[in-house]
Amino acid sequence: MTLRAPKVIQAGIRDVRFGDHVTLVEPVNIYGCTLGDDCFVGPFVEIQKRVVVGQGTRIQSHTFICEKVTLGKNCFIGHGVMFVNDLFKGGAPDPDPRSWGETRIGDGVTIGSNATILPVQICDGAVIGAGAVVTRDIKQRGIYAGNPARLLRTLP
Amino acid sequence: MTLRAPKVIQAGIRDVRFGDHVTLVEPVNIYGCTLGDDCFVGPFVEIQKRVVVGQGTRIQSHTFICEKVTLGKNCFIGHGVMFVNDLFKGGAPDPDPRSWGETRIGDGVTIGSNATILPVQICDGAVIGAGAVVTRDIKQRGIYAGNPARLLRTLP
Amino acid sequence: MTLRAPKVIQAGIRDVRFGDHVTLVEPVNIYGCTLGDDCFVGPFVEIQKRVVVGQGTRIQSHTFICEKVTLGKNCFIGHGVMFVNDLFKGGAPDPDPRSWGETRIGDGVTIGSNATILPVQICDGAVIGAGAVVTRDIKQRGIYAGNPARLLRTLP
Repeated sequence: MTLRAPKVIQAGIRDVRFGDHVTLVEPVNIYGCTLGDDCFVGPFVEIQKRVVVGQGTRIQSHTFICEKVTLGKNCFIGHGVMFVNDLFKGGAPDPDPRSWGETRIGDGVTIGSNATILPVQICDGAVIGAGAVVTRDIKQRGIYAGNPARLLRTLP
Repeated sequence: MTLRAPKVIQAGIRDVRFGDHVTLVEPVNIYGCTLGDDCFVGPFVEIQKRVVVGQGTRIQSHTFICEKVTLGKNCFIGHGVMFVNDLFKGGAPDPDPRSWGETRIGDGVTIGSNATILPVQICDGAVIGAGAVVTRDIKQRGIYAGNPARLLRTLP
Repeated sequence: MTLRAPKVIQAGIRDVRFGDHVTLVEPVNIYGCTLGDDCFVGPFVEIQKRVVVGQGTRIQSHTFICEKVTLGKNCFIGHGVMFVNDLFKGGAPDPDPRSWGETRIGDGVTIGSNATILPVQICDGAVIGAGAVVTRDIKQRGIYAGNPARLLRTLP
């Protein structure tokens, strides 16, 4: 191994479509995505290209949102939440985005801190507990927690 | 959606009461809290207002400490630890801080990396394993792990 | 408690041996380690001293790699992955590095986001699911998930 200088890129905000009254706390790394009116993004957040975030949704510090995720309106995404699109089914990352799963989060969804969200659909108004790992679609409004996440109780 | 410029705030250190010999590694986002003598705070950490950290406590990188958390003396808080105060019992975040739970961490507590701490009390000298999700008060000194966290073994 | 100014250190890149064609996205906190040819390191990553990363390995945002970890070639380390070396067996962090466990990750290993890796060995080509907590050596190529991580299925 020879010793070389690395290529150093600076995190930042690039090619993002913003609605009205969006607030961000830098440092963030956000590129190629769309953030609706009145969104908030905390520090140490990365959002990848083609993500769409509905109006009024708040994304807290340390969260990572990958390609192929769509978030509804007025959601609360806690701290350190990690979204996943590639399930490594073949035993390694698949470079072809067509193989990745899509995630659709409804309106008014609340996701607790340190949760992990695999490629799933989550219905309007669902609550995901802190530290949960969501591996299946959530079709009924309720509170879900655990690894893998299970229904704790329904919500009215 | 019209295209607008977002409001961009810079993370930093604001309105913090420091004891003697505190060390921080920037970037951090720390505001309105109290850090006792000889504390250490690693990079990519957020600490919210009214948090009190006892002397000699070390907070490692990527950790988030929310309002209504009090940490004792000489604790070790690992990397990527997330504290939680709002349990979303009504199905969504509650904007009234009086509804949030309080967390009190005793002296000499060790919390492993990627742990999630709901609003609980943890007694002096307890150890929380890496990746644990603590959902209940911990009253007996011991090592706890899992999701939800359970006692693995007591400590003398 | 008297009020004092803290000591503020800036995260950065210090004393790192780089191979050819390494790319990093700042801010990062990386020191005293070795990154082989063609490695990638995303934003908000910390890598501690004496870590060795094999060529072609990609380390995604928000990940923390501690001392005594060696990563093989062509691995994919997801977002928010936390490595651990001190198991706090005595009830608190042990300041003596000789007491810490070593982690050896083989070639072509894939680790999902938000996973936690205790001091273990993981064989070539294994896949660790998102949110998993790996507490034991992994000797058979397969997909592992859960807390603690268990074999879901073998890989050919």
